[in-house]
Amino acid sequence: MEAELKPAVELSAAVERTIAEIRGIDERYREKAQRHLDSLTKPLGSLGQLEAVAAQYVAWREEEVPKVTGKAVFVFAGDHGITDEGVSAYPREVTPQMVRNFLNGGAAINVLARHTNSDIVVVDVGVDADFDGAPGLLRRKVRRGTRNFAREAAMTDAELNAALEVGIELATEAAAQGRSLIALGEMGIGNTSAATAITAALSGKPVSALTGRGTGLDAPRCVRKAQIIDNALHLHFGDSTSRPDPLDVLRCVGGLEIAAITGAVLGAAAKRIAVVIDGFICTAGAAIACAIAPDARFGIIAGHLSQEPGHRVLLEAMGVKPVLQLDMRLGEGTGAVLTFPLIESAIRIYNEMATFDSAGVSEASEA
Amino acid sequence: MEAELKPAVELSAAVERTIAEIRGIDERYREKAQRHLDSLTKPLGSLGQLEAVAAQYVAWREEEVPKVTGKAVFVFAGDHGITDEGVSAYPREVTPQMVRNFLNGGAAINVLARHTNSDIVVVDVGVDADFDGAPGLLRRKVRRGTRNFAREAAMTDAELNAALEVGIELATEAAAQGRSLIALGEMGIGNTSAATAITAALSGKPVSALTGRGTGLDAPRCVRKAQIIDNALHLHFGDSTSRPDPLDVLRCVGGLEIAAITGAVLGAAAKRIAVVIDGFICTAGAAIACAIAPDARFGIIAGHLSQEPGHRVLLEAMGVKPVLQLDMRLGEGTGAVLTFPLIESAIRIYNEMATFDSAGVSEASEA
Repeated sequence: MEAELKPAVELSAAVERTIAEIRGIDERYREKAQRHLDSLTKPLGSLGQLEAVAAQYVAWREEEVPKVTGKAVFVFAGDHGITDEGVSAYPREVTPQMVRNFLNGGAAINVLARHTNSDIVVVDVGVDADFDGAPGLLRRKVRRGTRNFAREAAMTDAELNAALEVGIELATEAAAQGRSLIALGEMGIGNTSAATAITAALSGKPVSALTGRGTGLDAPRCVRKAQIIDNALHLHFGDSTSRPDPLDVLRCVGGLEIAAITGAVLGAAAKRIAVVIDGFICTAGAAIACAIAPDARFGIIAGHLSQEPGHRVLLEAMGVKPVLQLDMRLGEGTGAVLTFPLIESAIRIYNEMATFDSAGVSEASEA
Repeated sequence: MEAELKPAVELSAAVERTIAEIRGIDERYREKAQRHLDSLTKPLGSLGQLEAVAAQYVAWREEEVPKVTGKAVFVFAGDHGITDEGVSAYPREVTPQMVRNFLNGGAAINVLARHTNSDIVVVDVGVDADFDGAPGLLRRKVRRGTRNFAREAAMTDAELNAALEVGIELATEAAAQGRSLIALGEMGIGNTSAATAITAALSGKPVSALTGRGTGLDAPRCVRKAQIIDNALHLHFGDSTSRPDPLDVLRCVGGLEIAAITGAVLGAAAKRIAVVIDGFICTAGAAIACAIAPDARFGIIAGHLSQEPGHRVLLEAMGVKPVLQLDMRLGEGTGAVLTFPLIESAIRIYNEMATFDSAGVSEASEA
């Protein structure tokens, strides 16, 4: 169907190989995990979502005694041509300024990474700036920002593949380093516009219902932002009611950091790393990954529900339930890393609690 | 008004002194805190509830550089005469069994206390058992369980005062030990019935709309539990539409561990310790504290929203917003201690993030 509208994106061999490696979970692992949770000294199911997270993690990692090792957050940064249209409250130079802030340890994500004993990896996938003398930065720049998707496709096939491969490469490396749990985050002025366009294209919902304040737009500029995105979707995908191909959506209206996140989700899934996704933009990247490799979903934990209206739409379509609902809308991976202590708590509860038998506690008189 | 129905409870001098010490917050502190939060390198308000928690903590503690010191969770245990009516899925002996589980480190709250580097203090305020040779237990037993409130008042005035004083004493000690943040929890088979009765009496809402499954009742036993509670409320407070006195409610249908929690909230407020409350039962105790000393509210952080239907009613009446919503219904302080890392994150963000000025990041083009 989609092929009638637009030729599908041609994926590189590396991306294809990664997708082929991804497999779902063995339900027997999840059931076994739930039986163990039910034997612990607490009313059945009384730890709610913590139990679900523990069971998911066990089923994904397939470990008898689950462990969390080498926690890290990957923050992917990229610029967006769409900022030429005035869609953001902040000027474009804030992307490189914030990258320097990350490298200096002064941003919110740095504080949270320190507090949770997590490594932070800052990756330039497409910032429109040179970073001479910026120690600690991972230099994987594909292009100095995407093209303005209000006028042309944001990326070429080759650029999209390169950005996907950045994410795959880093996830693969993370697995080799023994990391079992990573968070993904992003920085890119203009990227709520890209995420909104992706969400509208994937869901078929009207752009006006999905457009939020981003980093702080007032109402008239919100309306204008929605109009620009709506026009862009017509430009790229016409007025057809059939849904465009997810990879073509990512290429035409996505971002380099968003594509790297798609790649990181795919790469992590291939290597059975559990991935905590952050807010709206990060989830847009993960939604593309799930659209092309549905089994990737079993390794995804949604960190939080952001204030951006499109976020809930994506999470519901993916069938993942956010852990936190704190009215946050910062990005950087903040809402993902905040859940690390909760995920670790769930795993420690799984491993360390006494059972009814071992503690000599009487069970309930009914199920 | 209430005095026409029932003589008000006579409070001891120690309780009266504590209540007199409680004062609200100086709004200038909260405003100053918010101005500082607004200067940090993030879009205005983008950290949502984390910012609210940080501003509340600063205003409550009145520290320029807020600190979290000596985290602890106090788990108050007590039995309930109402269990004679068959209102719980678990037998009464589970209360002392779980107390021993706490002392042995095998319960969920132990795991969470360890994971968050918090002390755990287990307090017997009214368990119907002797704890010979139970090292680590704080022995403050007022009575071996309350009386059956379906037939008579759960406590006398003297017992109520004694239980309140247990909580006040421990909070006062905590302040002397330099603790700035404590969580409260409870254990007591039958105590969702007491909390439901308290909530119905305080809110005037029908018992049937407030009664939940507790630790796992099936539907017919839920209906019966609601009927028993409804009858008890008529027994103690008649059919008058005027609301009974909160302390009289606590005395007639409360629990010893619930009264100790009321005391702990009052004692912590008097000494400006921030208090994280847990689920439905703990919140019932805190709601009584706020009813008799409304300024105590400014020091309270609601850890989570439990699955018990009455919990939301209490939190809304108190005007506090829960941090977590994880469908939990375990008690013990688990939902409170889970928020410690989030609260600490909020405080560290307040102290450690760079400002727009210091990091050289451009500000938004509009407010």
